[in-house]
Amino acid sequence: MGNQGYHVAVVGATGAVGQQMVKKLEERNFPVKKLTLLASSRSKGKELVFKGEKIIVEEAKPESFSGVDIALFSAGGAISKTLAGEAVKRGAVVIDNTSAFRMDPDVPLVVPEVNEEDLKDHKGIIANPNCSTIQLVVALQPIRKAFGLKRVIVSTYQAVSGAGAQAVREMVEQTKAVLAGERPQAEILPVRSAEKHYPIAFNAIPQIDVFQDNGFTFEEMKMINETRKIMHFPELKIAATCVRIPAERGHSESVYFEVESDRATEAEIRSVLAGSPGVLLQDDRAGQIYPMPYFASGKDEVFVGRIRRDLDVANGFHMWVVSDNLLKGAALNSIQIAESLIRNQWL
Amino acid sequence: MGNQGYHVAVVGATGAVGQQMVKKLEERNFPVKKLTLLASSRSKGKELVFKGEKIIVEEAKPESFSGVDIALFSAGGAISKTLAGEAVKRGAVVIDNTSAFRMDPDVPLVVPEVNEEDLKDHKGIIANPNCSTIQLVVALQPIRKAFGLKRVIVSTYQAVSGAGAQAVREMVEQTKAVLAGERPQAEILPVRSAEKHYPIAFNAIPQIDVFQDNGFTFEEMKMINETRKIMHFPELKIAATCVRIPAERGHSESVYFEVESDRATEAEIRSVLAGSPGVLLQDDRAGQIYPMPYFASGKDEVFVGRIRRDLDVANGFHMWVVSDNLLKGAALNSIQIAESLIRNQWL
Repeated sequence: MGNQGYHVAVVGATGAVGQQMVKKLEERNFPVKKLTLLASSRSKGKELVFKGEKIIVEEAKPESFSGVDIALFSAGGAISKTLAGEAVKRGAVVIDNTSAFRMDPDVPLVVPEVNEEDLKDHKGIIANPNCSTIQLVVALQPIRKAFGLKRVIVSTYQAVSGAGAQAVREMVEQTKAVLAGERPQAEILPVRSAEKHYPIAFNAIPQIDVFQDNGFTFEEMKMINETRKIMHFPELKIAATCVRIPAERGHSESVYFEVESDRATEAEIRSVLAGSPGVLLQDDRAGQIYPMPYFASGKDEVFVGRIRRDLDVANGFHMWVVSDNLLKGAALNSIQIAESLIRNQWL
Repeated sequence: MGNQGYHVAVVGATGAVGQQMVKKLEERNFPVKKLTLLASSRSKGKELVFKGEKIIVEEAKPESFSGVDIALFSAGGAISKTLAGEAVKRGAVVIDNTSAFRMDPDVPLVVPEVNEEDLKDHKGIIANPNCSTIQLVVALQPIRKAFGLKRVIVSTYQAVSGAGAQAVREMVEQTKAVLAGERPQAEILPVRSAEKHYPIAFNAIPQIDVFQDNGFTFEEMKMINETRKIMHFPELKIAATCVRIPAERGHSESVYFEVESDRATEAEIRSVLAGSPGVLLQDDRAGQIYPMPYFASGKDEVFVGRIRRDLDVANGFHMWVVSDNLLKGAALNSIQIAESLIRNQWL
């Protein structure tokens, strides 16, 4: 760490996303003057390595944020609600990866490739969108710009790491149990605090987060509402079905969309996406090239493929979108927000 | 086996579906006078047990069908193309579980709950639809009858057993490899004869069967064309995205549909489905009740849940449909066809 740069705090540093944040800060050579790692009292005393230096994890408290310039929160909505204001009060800008503030009209909800300008008006807290939303809008925004957008229907295939490192450990244990002919135990998915838990090993669970009165889950409503907010597109017709599958890292999305323009073709959509920031086109039928979570794991890009015209509906198309939910879906996007704040002097 | 009943042959008896056929014939007390088990020369000499009696698997040849009343084929399209005609020539009625004859206008494609009457006109060969199609039409047909149907968009989450018993063994080996920190080997999925193979363990593969010129895979076109044929509904707007996931048994489907009637409600759709043949409604948000492949495995029903109204589009709804691809999706439906032929004296 140098004298130049910023005092950065990572809240939830030992979690699945927090660890990726620390890794990405190093990998991207983020201008870190000092790195403070915070977590719940349970993780206090653990050590993480940043640029070859061991850093001891401290318990997150209001006073932990004294002197902090940028606080990256990813320790659950309850901790964000308790501590984000405390961090702002002490002069930090908070980039929050929970759903606590996302729909707050005073809080920008930002994917830099889509609505970087919204960062300008922040009041101390910036929200990082839900993982499944981020990769969707990165793919949809260039299509909207080029051809207009009327309608989106998405079905997700979400990886277990989206539910945290413990959920991944549980999937591994369940998988071993099933392979050994034993009954898998489930205590985390679909929602830790819910009454019932189901194994994810060799299964698919069509519930992510809790049910809302309208029959959609909160995860599905996050995708719907956050997409509209990020794209400044409240009238967009968008529906989501969110499903957990036994992948470790990398969310996949089967996306149907209708564009306004009658001139859109598969080739033009491909060409628009190929030149779009954050997108990597993987779409070659003859070569069997399409995105897959196993191969997107550990990568920064939003991978798009299987682009094809609907056979019945004019201006209707289908595509398949995959991205690492811990990176572009979480840690990377948070750090890209911080980088944008610095680059644009909006900190 | 008794003196009353039919001489039944199972072609592909050692395969994933063939074994379920033998099991279901016994379980349902199908009137079997004699059971002939046929397979490729590779499986010749293997033994299966039917009603406590060991039966030796013979190599399938034209003369194997002498005296056979009902031949259940599930050994791949090439074998059906070669031997189905030979079986019919020798007086058998063929129920074929491959795609060889499904779109032949002279061959009925039947799901008894939907279009049993089509069996009446058979000319010796009856086609059993694709697994992912069967469970879809079982759920859609009652909805169409009650409210009319305008449009369907489906994304599938298909189990590995749909690609055969060897694919399941490969998934198990890949899973063990990944858990041991080794690189998984892939030789079967997505398409054995294709150039590239990808691991399915902890992955999702958005290719089932080969690509068509229109960008859809053959599996996707099967769902589209077979649904229209079974439902006698050539003008139905229907699109599919077919994806393999690391489940062993049980295909899941995220289905968006639009009905004609303005009077359809979630409650009425639930009530219609709850009373429909072959359907088991599992739809209780408060109780976290919805279908899942792990729990549908080994069951006969088509499970439907997560029924909810689209938030933007009038008469638009979503649902989640799960069924065991080896049972209702294959073996069970084939035997139900045979039972219908007998019951209606259409053999």
